[in-house]
Amino acid sequence: MEEIGFLGMGIMGKAMAVNLLRHGFKVTVWNRTLSRCDELVQHGASVGETPAAVVKKCKYTIAMLSDPAAALSVVFDKDGALEQLCGGKGYIDMSTVDADTSSKISEAITSKGGSFLEGPVSGSKKPAEDGQLVILAAGDKALYDHVLPAFDVLGKKSFFLGQVGNGAKMKLVVNMVMGSMMNAFSEGIVLADKSGLDPHTLLDVLDLGAIANPMFKMKGPAMIKHSYPPAFPLKHQQKDMRLALALGDENAVPMPVAAAANEAFKKARSLGLGDHDFSAVFETVGKGAQSST
Amino acid sequence: MEEIGFLGMGIMGKAMAVNLLRHGFKVTVWNRTLSRCDELVQHGASVGETPAAVVKKCKYTIAMLSDPAAALSVVFDKDGALEQLCGGKGYIDMSTVDADTSSKISEAITSKGGSFLEGPVSGSKKPAEDGQLVILAAGDKALYDHVLPAFDVLGKKSFFLGQVGNGAKMKLVVNMVMGSMMNAFSEGIVLADKSGLDPHTLLDVLDLGAIANPMFKMKGPAMIKHSYPPAFPLKHQQKDMRLALALGDENAVPMPVAAAANEAFKKARSLGLGDHDFSAVFETVGKGAQSST
Amino acid sequence: MEEIGFLGMGIMGKAMAVNLLRHGFKVTVWNRTLSRCDELVQHGASVGETPAAVVKKCKYTIAMLSDPAAALSVVFDKDGALEQLCGGKGYIDMSTVDADTSSKISEAITSKGGSFLEGPVSGSKKPAEDGQLVILAAGDKALYDHVLPAFDVLGKKSFFLGQVGNGAKMKLVVNMVMGSMMNAFSEGIVLADKSGLDPHTLLDVLDLGAIANPMFKMKGPAMIKHSYPPAFPLKHQQKDMRLALALGDENAVPMPVAAAANEAFKKARSLGLGDHDFSAVFETVGKGAQSST
Amino acid sequence: MEEIGFLGMGIMGKAMAVNLLRHGFKVTVWNRTLSRCDELVQHGASVGETPAAVVKKCKYTIAMLSDPAAALSVVFDKDGALEQLCGGKGYIDMSTVDADTSSKISEAITSKGGSFLEGPVSGSKKPAEDGQLVILAAGDKALYDHVLPAFDVLGKKSFFLGQVGNGAKMKLVVNMVMGSMMNAFSEGIVLADKSGLDPHTLLDVLDLGAIANPMFKMKGPAMIKHSYPPAFPLKHQQKDMRLALALGDENAVPMPVAAAANEAFKKARSLGLGDHDFSAVFETVGKGAQSST
Repeated sequence: MEEIGFLGMGIMGKAMAVNLLRHGFKVTVWNRTLSRCDELVQHGASVGETPAAVVKKCKYTIAMLSDPAAALSVVFDKDGALEQLCGGKGYIDMSTVDADTSSKISEAITSKGGSFLEGPVSGSKKPAEDGQLVILAAGDKALYDHVLPAFDVLGKKSFFLGQVGNGAKMKLVVNMVMGSMMNAFSEGIVLADKSGLDPHTLLDVLDLGAIANPMFKMKGPAMIKHSYPPAFPLKHQQKDMRLALALGDENAVPMPVAAAANEAFKKARSLGLGDHDFSAVFETVGKGAQSST
Repeated sequence: MEEIGFLGMGIMGKAMAVNLLRHGFKVTVWNRTLSRCDELVQHGASVGETPAAVVKKCKYTIAMLSDPAAALSVVFDKDGALEQLCGGKGYIDMSTVDADTSSKISEAITSKGGSFLEGPVSGSKKPAEDGQLVILAAGDKALYDHVLPAFDVLGKKSFFLGQVGNGAKMKLVVNMVMGSMMNAFSEGIVLADKSGLDPHTLLDVLDLGAIANPMFKMKGPAMIKHSYPPAFPLKHQQKDMRLALALGDENAVPMPVAAAANEAFKKARSLGLGDHDFSAVFETVGKGAQSST
Repeated sequence: MEEIGFLGMGIMGKAMAVNLLRHGFKVTVWNRTLSRCDELVQHGASVGETPAAVVKKCKYTIAMLSDPAAALSVVFDKDGALEQLCGGKGYIDMSTVDADTSSKISEAITSKGGSFLEGPVSGSKKPAEDGQLVILAAGDKALYDHVLPAFDVLGKKSFFLGQVGNGAKMKLVVNMVMGSMMNAFSEGIVLADKSGLDPHTLLDVLDLGAIANPMFKMKGPAMIKHSYPPAFPLKHQQKDMRLALALGDENAVPMPVAAAANEAFKKARSLGLGDHDFSAVFETVGKGAQSST
Repeated sequence: MEEIGFLGMGIMGKAMAVNLLRHGFKVTVWNRTLSRCDELVQHGASVGETPAAVVKKCKYTIAMLSDPAAALSVVFDKDGALEQLCGGKGYIDMSTVDADTSSKISEAITSKGGSFLEGPVSGSKKPAEDGQLVILAAGDKALYDHVLPAFDVLGKKSFFLGQVGNGAKMKLVVNMVMGSMMNAFSEGIVLADKSGLDPHTLLDVLDLGAIANPMFKMKGPAMIKHSYPPAFPLKHQQKDMRLALALGDENAVPMPVAAAANEAFKKARSLGLGDHDFSAVFETVGKGAQSST
């Protein structure tokens, strides 16, 4: 495969670019703070001065930015990627952004003749380093097929989901199920505790049964200690619940359990827990259980 | 360990008794229809004529009956277990019964000097045959310690949960979490489908992430086909939700997500789905999605 | 109409007996603390020494006791009403009791040949004094027809609802609707307040529209001040929600809004608000709104 | 007061303009289909050729249009009101529009030096004819004070709610409470029916108690017959629930009962009931109850 451009050397981007280099890809990297590219140079990367310079040099450019604002800035600002995008060039935005942002970037790029793919990922630092991400791609199918060798290095599995926006939607659905499960789990832990059962034993029993899952195993012990170090902030989880409910509203899908879960997350926000991990929704059930656990 | 009595040669009881025989335990079995004991005799079991006869012969007797009525009958009827229970004898009821039934049996046995243990299990036919049950024991701790070698053969893991009734409570908590999760899952599948995403892809994405669990994997494909062969009937799941909510009511535990899930199960009952698998709650969300999946 | 017996001279019973006397009925009263009957004597009442004595003397006896325990005691204890009940005598229990208590009393009385009517009322002290109660009668229709002149004095309206138990059920349905409305009202007040609208203005607007009702008018101003003097204790309201949901469960009626309201009342109980007025469920929505209202 | 302009002679606008004329106001009217103004001329009105002409002639102009699109068109189109708005002129939009539409109109008018008031009303045809509307005004306080004599003719009560947008918000809060109440009411009727109580009797009992309100009285009998002639279409009610929940989301107000009600309305939409009256949410509870009522 041709040389790949890579914009954004944050925690995720750096780990992903290193993986590509390790597997023999030629990579030209860029970061707003250019010094963050030094480590990549030691792994064999070239450095581009601006997003536009990277796109000019490379047929395919991957972007992995921290938020929608950054994703838009890298494309639309002066010396941005858009300036050099044209027929024959592909742009793959793997940042987690909303469907609107994704559509805006897609339209700008395709109107200049370029091809576009969104590819938000499921998984954080560790899976990124291990090449174990799950990639939810949508947009230009030919571009997807072409960059699949790179996706195979970055993730354990990639999906092509159709038109632009479907990657973001799939993430919403997954996060909605996850948010409801976190509430069910919280209610279960408090119910066990208040009913005279050891909540740690509940965790053990759950982990041996049909609903055993990594999230319960990972979050449960900390929740029992009322400890919520922010891996996925509650306010972001609540935002995803809201957006998933809005998607359900558009399509007339009744979602009473998700709606109840969303209200619990809102309650948690009203208690000032928005910046804690989303497992802090536990406090809306277990308040007052603190002393007894 | 001394010879073990075993009352009830249904699907579960037979598989469990065979496991004990295979691992070198001496076992005397009884079943209401005695002919069901023949197969066990081929595996080396003795047969008792009545529950009382089994208890008279064996220091420890395990019961595995189909429902509370059968569990009570085997203890209290003429020639029942109670007639021979006395100091030095232990009775272990592994049937799935409510806390009231368990307490009634416990009181009768302990008032005659016997020791009692409830030990409902998590897992059905296959885990029973493979010795992979999860045993939720509660009651007499000394008896628990004594029969642990038998539990180690029957299950992959056993828990001692304290006083009689706690085994039943733990099952309720687990089933409550499971019921809420099934609703969240149903909402997710329908939301994906109505939003233009392939629900099978959702299953694949879920199975690769932090909330991957055996239930989603096992039930999902059938649900998408609106097929609900009854492994765990919806009306029983709804009953467990109701009992878990009642337990929460006693202890002032707010459980809004479980309550919403319970109402969906009730809605499903009102649609005539009580005898289908509990995954049929999917119909309360997805009605009308049928043609498009 | 013949002389009427009246058991129970609490706040309600006294007001009701006075009304009967004022309208020309002859009444024989009894109360556990007999001195509470003095005031009635001044209004022209006779006094009976025991419930049995009252029933012996009067063809029809009304009971208005404080709770199920008192209602049972007055019938079944030594010198209780049951001793003198027989063919040709009628017993009308207007206490607020559960369906089980009502059935127990009904069975005992009818098995001795007496006729029975339950007649729980809607309305408290003031309506009782003004003869403005609403009477939810059920049981023996002939007895109902016979005592209607008395009901016409005691209430502004009486209903005959069929078999024993239906009076209690009707109260549950009404209280369930009331409990959900109180939650909707609470959410509305807090939403107005947090959105920059004056909650007092909301009360005024509500009072001019299609959903104007006495409860909003009466409770709203105190709620905005976070004041909940107990007219109807929250724990009793929550108990009625629970019983109404249980009734819905029996009949497979999905009640998602009542279920959500019930969980809010449970949350309020977990915050220690069970003895406050049921309008204190406001705190589960508005916590933190305190300073701004 | 000076001559008043009045734009929009629909059912509401015509009734309101007639009221003004009857009370001695001089009114110049306009309607897209000018012939609808004839009746008003008989009552003494003048007619303007365009919105701009009306604004030019009158110091104060009231608009009562059918929807946001019409409200915008009358202001911004060629010959629209905006062309003649300037310092010293006031524009009062009494149409029911969203906060965004209201803000857009407000900004345009104030940037030309005019003063603006939004004044959505509660009440439909009959109250409009009888001058019994409730007016929820917000915007320019001096303008409000000036047109109060006209509001006094049009409504039984008007409120000044502060900044532009607050009128729309107040309507959302009221409609949210109303939507939750409609669900509670539906659940109550079905619960009564399925529990063997006559739902008509429930209506009578409710109408005598603390939660008696015009909506229950008006809608109940039709609902029992599963008849839902559209006074307020369900899809509009559901939209208002959604917007009220969004407002709660912005302000971190947990609204679990409103959320459950909203999901029931969404369920009703998925059953194809969006164009029926909002009381058709009854079908989500009572489906299957049809034959027995």
